[in-house]
Amino acid sequence: MTRYSARLKILLIMTLTVLFSCKQESTAKTEYHADGDLSQEHPKLILTAKGVKAIRARLGSIPIFDRSLEKVKAEVDSEIEKGIDVPIPKDYSGGYTHVTHKRNWFTLQKAGLLYQILDDEKYAKYVKDMLMAYEALYKTLPLHPKTRSYARGKLFWQCLNDANWLVYVSQAYDCIYDYLTQEEREKLETNLFRPFADHISVDSPQFYQRVHNHSTWGNAAVGMIGLVMNDEALIDRALYGIKDLELDANKKDDDGGFLNANGKAGFLANIEEPFSPDGYYNEGPYYQRYAMYPFLIFATGLHNVKPELKIFEYKEGVLLKSINALLNLSDAEGEFFPLNDGQKGMSYYNGALVTAVDVSFHYGDQDPGLLSIAKQQDRVLLDDSGLAVALGIKEGNEKPFAKTSINLSDGSDGKQGGVGILRQDDLELVFKYASQGSSHGHYDKLSFSFYENGEEVIQDYGLVRYVNIEQKGGGNYLKENTTWAKQTIAHNTLIQNERSHFNAKYDIGSQFHSDLNYFSFDPKDIQVVSAAESNAYPGTEMLRTMALIKDEALEKPYVLDIMKVTSDKADQYDLPYYYFGQILQTNFEYKTKEVLKPLGTKNGYQHLYLEATAKARDDNSKFSWFNNNKFYTLTTSTSHKDELLFARIGANDPDFNLRRDPALILRRNDTKNTCFVSVIEAHGRYSPVSESAENSKSSIAELQVIFDNEAYTAVAITTISGTTKIFITSNNNASVDAIHDLSINGSSYSWTGPYYFK
Amino acid sequence: MTRYSARLKILLIMTLTVLFSCKQESTAKTEYHADGDLSQEHPKLILTAKGVKAIRARLGSIPIFDRSLEKVKAEVDSEIEKGIDVPIPKDYSGGYTHVTHKRNWFTLQKAGLLYQILDDEKYAKYVKDMLMAYEALYKTLPLHPKTRSYARGKLFWQCLNDANWLVYVSQAYDCIYDYLTQEEREKLETNLFRPFADHISVDSPQFYQRVHNHSTWGNAAVGMIGLVMNDEALIDRALYGIKDLELDANKKDDDGGFLNANGKAGFLANIEEPFSPDGYYNEGPYYQRYAMYPFLIFATGLHNVKPELKIFEYKEGVLLKSINALLNLSDAEGEFFPLNDGQKGMSYYNGALVTAVDVSFHYGDQDPGLLSIAKQQDRVLLDDSGLAVALGIKEGNEKPFAKTSINLSDGSDGKQGGVGILRQDDLELVFKYASQGSSHGHYDKLSFSFYENGEEVIQDYGLVRYVNIEQKGGGNYLKENTTWAKQTIAHNTLIQNERSHFNAKYDIGSQFHSDLNYFSFDPKDIQVVSAAESNAYPGTEMLRTMALIKDEALEKPYVLDIMKVTSDKADQYDLPYYYFGQILQTNFEYKTKEVLKPLGTKNGYQHLYLEATAKARDDNSKFSWFNNNKFYTLTTSTSHKDELLFARIGANDPDFNLRRDPALILRRNDTKNTCFVSVIEAHGRYSPVSESAENSKSSIAELQVIFDNEAYTAVAITTISGTTKIFITSNNNASVDAIHDLSINGSSYSWTGPYYFK
Repeated sequence: MTRYSARLKILLIMTLTVLFSCKQESTAKTEYHADGDLSQEHPKLILTAKGVKAIRARLGSIPIFDRSLEKVKAEVDSEIEKGIDVPIPKDYSGGYTHVTHKRNWFTLQKAGLLYQILDDEKYAKYVKDMLMAYEALYKTLPLHPKTRSYARGKLFWQCLNDANWLVYVSQAYDCIYDYLTQEEREKLETNLFRPFADHISVDSPQFYQRVHNHSTWGNAAVGMIGLVMNDEALIDRALYGIKDLELDANKKDDDGGFLNANGKAGFLANIEEPFSPDGYYNEGPYYQRYAMYPFLIFATGLHNVKPELKIFEYKEGVLLKSINALLNLSDAEGEFFPLNDGQKGMSYYNGALVTAVDVSFHYGDQDPGLLSIAKQQDRVLLDDSGLAVALGIKEGNEKPFAKTSINLSDGSDGKQGGVGILRQDDLELVFKYASQGSSHGHYDKLSFSFYENGEEVIQDYGLVRYVNIEQKGGGNYLKENTTWAKQTIAHNTLIQNERSHFNAKYDIGSQFHSDLNYFSFDPKDIQVVSAAESNAYPGTEMLRTMALIKDEALEKPYVLDIMKVTSDKADQYDLPYYYFGQILQTNFEYKTKEVLKPLGTKNGYQHLYLEATAKARDDNSKFSWFNNNKFYTLTTSTSHKDELLFARIGANDPDFNLRRDPALILRRNDTKNTCFVSVIEAHGRYSPVSESAENSKSSIAELQVIFDNEAYTAVAITTISGTTKIFITSNNNASVDAIHDLSINGSSYSWTGPYYFK
Repeated sequence: MTRYSARLKILLIMTLTVLFSCKQESTAKTEYHADGDLSQEHPKLILTAKGVKAIRARLGSIPIFDRSLEKVKAEVDSEIEKGIDVPIPKDYSGGYTHVTHKRNWFTLQKAGLLYQILDDEKYAKYVKDMLMAYEALYKTLPLHPKTRSYARGKLFWQCLNDANWLVYVSQAYDCIYDYLTQEEREKLETNLFRPFADHISVDSPQFYQRVHNHSTWGNAAVGMIGLVMNDEALIDRALYGIKDLELDANKKDDDGGFLNANGKAGFLANIEEPFSPDGYYNEGPYYQRYAMYPFLIFATGLHNVKPELKIFEYKEGVLLKSINALLNLSDAEGEFFPLNDGQKGMSYYNGALVTAVDVSFHYGDQDPGLLSIAKQQDRVLLDDSGLAVALGIKEGNEKPFAKTSINLSDGSDGKQGGVGILRQDDLELVFKYASQGSSHGHYDKLSFSFYENGEEVIQDYGLVRYVNIEQKGGGNYLKENTTWAKQTIAHNTLIQNERSHFNAKYDIGSQFHSDLNYFSFDPKDIQVVSAAESNAYPGTEMLRTMALIKDEALEKPYVLDIMKVTSDKADQYDLPYYYFGQILQTNFEYKTKEVLKPLGTKNGYQHLYLEATAKARDDNSKFSWFNNNKFYTLTTSTSHKDELLFARIGANDPDFNLRRDPALILRRNDTKNTCFVSVIEAHGRYSPVSESAENSKSSIAELQVIFDNEAYTAVAITTISGTTKIFITSNNNASVDAIHDLSINGSSYSWTGPYYFK
């Protein structure tokens, strides 16, 4: 801490020096605004006059910044070479006019930065000329000719893209503001920016007046141009929504989401609602990554121009917390866990995360861990925050970004369940007990996925969509996203009577959420999270406790999975494990099918082929598999009445949209109250070069449920070395200071807190 | 060239200097042998007295050698710490006594090297003590108690492992030869080494007297101990086999190979037979890698002790050529193409390839490309060759090992077909038109596989075996290796009437081979190989011409695949393409099956599920897929009578031994003479981070067979940019100087050589 304080002091002195000289410089060079306030001097929004000064002074000596600048310069120079193209809007996404206007917004924003940083009028003139071309075009434009959107734009087929445009172009305008004459500015503001902002807000309230990622873009667009133009009315509209406007609470948008269920609107409401106090975004990391840019870029503008708003402290600093949450929602390779509709492979190398990391570092507490991520990203923003990161890296301040176990609450009040991530060594377990997750949510209460060193061991299927691959349904969501990916059977959680949670009804699922029982990350060797779900199947209570335990008797930590079911009637239960790879061995006999038939007819079951069936053993059923040259074993406590089904995805898939991935499904028939208890081990390795297999066998000799009532579930785990450990979880009185005494088979166990393990 | 000559001179001068000083030193230190010949001074076999001197002088200044030495020292020190363990033989592979004796042979060999290099008696004493323990044990041993082998050893259950032991232990004995007294040597030689050599040779002729990789180990073992002991009788037996011994030519070994079909035996015959003049090993690269060590290590010993034999020049230098061939039989990541029974993932990082690369560099022509592979391997042998490599790397002499297109003939005379590898940019096509490949061969005449940057695009399935993974059939070949992997339908080649080539009969297949039509690698942009097969289906002639063509109209080179069939009757033909990944698009309509049934009942067809069927189009049928974030398209010339079958491996697989990989099968019914013509394109890329798809569509507009008779097949390839190119292949007069004139649809084409392309 002392070291940081010292550094902070130096930084402060440097900053003041820069500020002072900057002020002097600007007095000489740029015109003063009415209030003489430094925060009103252009550029002021994202890149600031102060930042420009600091960057120019260091150019050529800040490697990662210099490289980023060089790349951007090459891109923009090549665009300038090609000349200005502002076509009359005509196409959907992917079409010529769409792609051109989209490229223009990026180029304008970058050219603005280059003008400021390189002090080269070429760039300012390019921005000015293109803006004037837009001014000439925009005032002639009716609604976009394509009619598919619930809120049509003018440059693009949907307001969302118009808003994207304005978020970027506001920054370009800010950068050349002082380069333009008063007259030029008035022309642009009167004919382009104000009507543009009005179209996506007051003229399109169904788009603007919501809590939704679309509206966030709308709010940011209106607010940012408002900040540049110093227009308090627009800023106000951005922050609080359109005044005195009320919309029908029951209408839905194209995706099936409610248009405005609770009447809330504006940027602050958009921060308020989807983020939990821990920074978890209710749609999950894939959509958080998409939504992040307008949140952070407008917040940065507000911070710079309206510091009195203390936007980064809003809701106890939730915006910066959300970046930390998002980074923690990635695996060892930086790829986001594909919760809800999430495309696999999306990672913190995405451009939105460059913004997130730079902004978080600069406007947050200069976490040296963020520098290591920035270094991996190998680029920075060309603004104040990018400079700060580049300097931090140059000075060698980075430290590894340490991801540890974390519990992220869901819901604006943090009381709508959450997501727990357990981490030990190279293993990561993601346990989801959140709310529905808006229209992109899946029916996957108490589901989990499991990773080893960034590789999927037990997968979450993700979405059924080939984003931007036109050959697959135009790159849109495919019908199997609904019939398969969202259904409960597509997840590693419990299915009752082959029906999905909430019968896969969004209106019902949206009303409920799971509830945390407890989480405990101390001592480090025993990471536990436990949560209950009471509404997915009315009359049935599910309580799942998952632990990642490091035990010296095993080579790697193992997963203990306890799924306790309390029901008012006898039902059939399926518990799938979507493993990857090759089956090595089982301790039970199975019989493969010569002909493969779908496992069911609906609720996702129609997409699974049944490959083999087995009767479970009366003690433990063991299943070993082999993937990516590593070994895994599932040991599960079963009775001979249980079945084991080997299934494979891909039935009723007329367009081959699904991957042919396998699953092992544990089936328990005609059961009222029951408890599924399993251990998942990652063990050993294989080298195809030396052809040696190490530790290829399970180290678990026996797994036994030794006690189970409404208050406690106790499991005995015996390793092949002969040691037995007892894990007792508190099912309903799990506070840290609760005192427990329990007698099992004549032995008594006493402990304080949510669980016992010894 | 000049530069090399200069370097060679310097090397020569250095070597002479070392030689001279070495000689002086040794006069003072070691006893002289009767003939006073330097090549008889110990160590002389692999590490030489001269090498020891050179190594000692440079220790600490040759990084890769020093690191390798440090690792070996740590291993051996830890073994010395544990003490000597020479148990009474009892177990099969994997069992305690087997594993212990195996570890001992490695440790002895390494300890011998350490004694010489570090001049530390501790290691000599350890070797001596252990050898004495073996002497005490061996003279008491009957045959190994396990009876499974056709040739039982004494230390191990099979002679092969006894031979392994002696190959390594000869080296250890050589290293401590001068450390021992005359008496000690006599004791070891009389009670251990001579009876040991006799047991694996004269006492086990069914093992020793063959052309087979087992015998190669046997010959090397006998020869190496003979070289150390200066025993001309043993050396003779090693080189030429057991004198005046004849074996039954019809007997078979455990693997179904003939014991001694042609009466040949001995090390020289073992070089003569399996290697083609180009250095291709008839079992393919996976088994070549296994067989390589005894070939090279005994050859090195012969080179050092009997330089007059000029062993590295034997059969026009085939041993060193074979190393070059083997390295060229690997993909961009150094993994060997899994021809015949080959386990995927085996690569030039295997220890046998460290020997191969070091020996080839030192005893060959110091190819700087080998240094770059040695650098990737990151270890060298602790001997003369390893020193040479370490010095080469230290001096920065390495250059990339450039793999280009290569045609490797098969057969001891180079006239039994071959393997052609076409390379352009990141693409590699492997075309197999070889002989049966001994008992590990597959029935896959004219099959191919296709790689992009080391990733499989069109795969060769490889073997069905989980080597050394005990849970899968003890790590042995699984029955699906015969019922699936060896069958023709498991390969990317033509199947007639759902029967495998030669009816999958080894005795028949072994009699035949395919024949080269031509190969042409100049100009570089058009790489072509063409071969015929007349015996796989009696009465049917198959001629496949495969080209990898770089055309400026396409982003990447493309594959042109022409399979011409001439038959004396109407038959059904299947031509499978074992692609990987997700189906994106077809230009024909297909219908998926709700229930999956096996495609057939035998010859491998019983292992394929039929997933979908389609009628082909009357012009071109197109099939696009997506794998590893890259796009691929197959365009094939079809008629509406053709069928397209979508299949997946995995039917009738009761133990889940097979991978669930997909295939597209082109089926042509009731056809006599016909021609299958296809283009395979690799194109574009996808980023899941930026979610952008580039060049995701085929660039081929049309593919047309415009002429086909017994002399010529001509194909017109039209790209979407509108240009048409004509490829004409000569089917029966393909010599480089043949002059051709052909008129097609009124246009005349004239060319010299095997093909026309314009």
